[in-house]
Amino acid sequence: MDLKQATPQDLAAALESAEAAYTGLRGCNLALDMTRGKPAPEQLDLADEMLTIVGHGDTAGDDGTDYRNYGILAGIPEARAFFAEYMEVGPKEIVVGGNSSLTMMYDTIMGGMYYGMPGGDAPWKDQGTVKFICPVPGYDRHFAICERLGIEMLTVAKTPEGPDLDAVEELPKDPAVKGIWCVPKYSNPSGETYSDATVQRLAEMPVAAPDFRVVWDNAYNVHHLGDGPAPLANMLDACKQAGNPDRVLMFGSTSKITHAGAGVAVMAASEANVADALKKMFYSSIGPDKINQLRHVRFFKDMAGLLAHMDKQAEIVAPKFAAVDRALETHLAGKGIATWTAPKGGYFVSVEVLDGCASAIIEMANRAGVKLTPAGATHPYGKGPADSFIRLAPTVQSVAEIETAMEVFCACVELVCAKKLQETA
Amino acid sequence: MDLKQATPQDLAAALESAEAAYTGLRGCNLALDMTRGKPAPEQLDLADEMLTIVGHGDTAGDDGTDYRNYGILAGIPEARAFFAEYMEVGPKEIVVGGNSSLTMMYDTIMGGMYYGMPGGDAPWKDQGTVKFICPVPGYDRHFAICERLGIEMLTVAKTPEGPDLDAVEELPKDPAVKGIWCVPKYSNPSGETYSDATVQRLAEMPVAAPDFRVVWDNAYNVHHLGDGPAPLANMLDACKQAGNPDRVLMFGSTSKITHAGAGVAVMAASEANVADALKKMFYSSIGPDKINQLRHVRFFKDMAGLLAHMDKQAEIVAPKFAAVDRALETHLAGKGIATWTAPKGGYFVSVEVLDGCASAIIEMANRAGVKLTPAGATHPYGKGPADSFIRLAPTVQSVAEIETAMEVFCACVELVCAKKLQETA
Repeated sequence: MDLKQATPQDLAAALESAEAAYTGLRGCNLALDMTRGKPAPEQLDLADEMLTIVGHGDTAGDDGTDYRNYGILAGIPEARAFFAEYMEVGPKEIVVGGNSSLTMMYDTIMGGMYYGMPGGDAPWKDQGTVKFICPVPGYDRHFAICERLGIEMLTVAKTPEGPDLDAVEELPKDPAVKGIWCVPKYSNPSGETYSDATVQRLAEMPVAAPDFRVVWDNAYNVHHLGDGPAPLANMLDACKQAGNPDRVLMFGSTSKITHAGAGVAVMAASEANVADALKKMFYSSIGPDKINQLRHVRFFKDMAGLLAHMDKQAEIVAPKFAAVDRALETHLAGKGIATWTAPKGGYFVSVEVLDGCASAIIEMANRAGVKLTPAGATHPYGKGPADSFIRLAPTVQSVAEIETAMEVFCACVELVCAKKLQETA
Repeated sequence: MDLKQATPQDLAAALESAEAAYTGLRGCNLALDMTRGKPAPEQLDLADEMLTIVGHGDTAGDDGTDYRNYGILAGIPEARAFFAEYMEVGPKEIVVGGNSSLTMMYDTIMGGMYYGMPGGDAPWKDQGTVKFICPVPGYDRHFAICERLGIEMLTVAKTPEGPDLDAVEELPKDPAVKGIWCVPKYSNPSGETYSDATVQRLAEMPVAAPDFRVVWDNAYNVHHLGDGPAPLANMLDACKQAGNPDRVLMFGSTSKITHAGAGVAVMAASEANVADALKKMFYSSIGPDKINQLRHVRFFKDMAGLLAHMDKQAEIVAPKFAAVDRALETHLAGKGIATWTAPKGGYFVSVEVLDGCASAIIEMANRAGVKLTPAGATHPYGKGPADSFIRLAPTVQSVAEIETAMEVFCACVELVCAKKLQETA
């Protein structure tokens, strides 16, 4: 029954029923957390062999270099070759870094602000207002970097094929617009993968700033839910073909492949951008943790090894996403108060509820022991304009825990939305 | 024989003898490197047990937290407690980071420039010219950070007790002076350890800028050559006692204790400074590599374990420093053309030759297959004013290799200096 069309009596009955469900669940003293995209212990276990794969007497690279010592700013050759295949670029187009692609992205944007980017005349901070295009809903940490660095955020909506390009293409006519954040595959939090046309238009669109960059955070490159990684056109190739080889900076990491805190992060870009990044890195580093890079290369052996590893991850993760979808279908389908994504990969399900209801739903769930990402976290400055987006992160809890959490969540959605409809009737 | 007092005949004879020695050594096709303070493989071997000390099923902290996952920006509690003892501060006064204290220091200075420091009214970059005090000779990477960030460097000389404080104390009367670089123990490259009086005066001296910082790079805290770590007064305590608790930011790392590329870096400072650092770090990191921190804590067990480890390091390193000193004494003592340090720890020997001779000596040594740190690298902008400082890094080569390299070096010193004396006679 579509609650928006319901009689006052039916609406009251739905509200009562949701309230009863909620009250019952609240009595269970739950402590469940669906706030962040964290791997579950079972996923981390899959990579534990990596921990002891590099030992005494076995720390040198193929050319005999001792990876325990200083140096090799761009990462060990074995890891550059491996991650070149992972990112679908050449080994010279790769920098393999430390444990965090967020750090690499922050340093990149800060580097643009403070030192400038190839193609530009001056550091961004010396060019007046700096603006970035932010497809929404998006990743809170991207927006936090912009906010922290004083970069103005221009939001554009998303479509099932990526950002709304008609809106995007208007913005870089302003030379103050220096970039766009993109999570091109299994996007955070909305789940879509960019179509070939989206990739091509982003590579080709005219931009006024010669130092404009597409920040391509391919965090979920291989993180499918059972059907294998979704195809995604090669953005660096597309940029090269469009005559804009320096436009894109691509990032990835093994944080959600091996161990979230002890993975390896990579940047892929044109050789000019790689040279610029290494020049900037020189001042802050004598080299990354090469032993941990060696662990990763030895553990995976090759891309087939990594893909087989991700199939095992999918076996663990997919049932959790199925549990989320099942609950949403069971409790909310056809009620006209919520829509949701059914992603083929990544770490999130996005739920859109009636305007003005998201914060109240999250607060109610929290009172019943189910922590959810704050409403608005998916938007710049933490403020969703309509208070309607909720991000669910179902990986870290068990299937049973997710089923319980989703009972709570669905009761909260129905309760808050029915009350809202009652008030506005 | 003091060559400065020698007769022309004696000088010519010395030159001839040095030339003969040099020519002979040049024929040996040497390939020796004394440029950087890198540990030798035998030193790295001492920590190899650490590589496999954390394995499957054994990745949790004392409180059950799984250290394979995201989070814990300040470092795992076990590592904070351990390094608090190492840095002689409280666990809340410690941040344990990634593999590089250089990165932490760069991020700290960049953070001051872009966001400001507690006590200050504005980011340093918005306060006009920013200046740092640079005791010379010093560490090239410190000076490179200043140069890169556009910070003006004010050099002061060093004494056997630390920087020349009469000179230092004049400079912070200018509020544009925001800091001073210090390597307080076994200083790079000059080897001295700061006296208690130096520590106290640095803690107490009046400074005009409320956001002035002493950057205390205690890189060689426990890196003695056999007599145990030199005593060094606790700079954070001294600052607290002087009523300037936020003045100092102390850094350290295990890069030259365990593995140079895969160590753990730490910052120690007042709780206000730690809170500020963590706030800045939040935007660029979801947490450090906690597994590697756990490896370190498990490997050392406690400070006694770390100190015993450093005794083993000293057994390897001390004979190399002795070989350097022996060669300098044998070939150059009493000749009036060079003086040198005999440090009790650290990674370097500093040689001061006749003005205008350092570059030529290094070039000659290089032509004979002995690479030395470029002359002037120990000074801002890579330019020693008198072209007289040479830094020797004798750790990475074997004793036999160092003996050979020092034959070359001493021949080059005598040759270049004797020629200089001939020309200026």
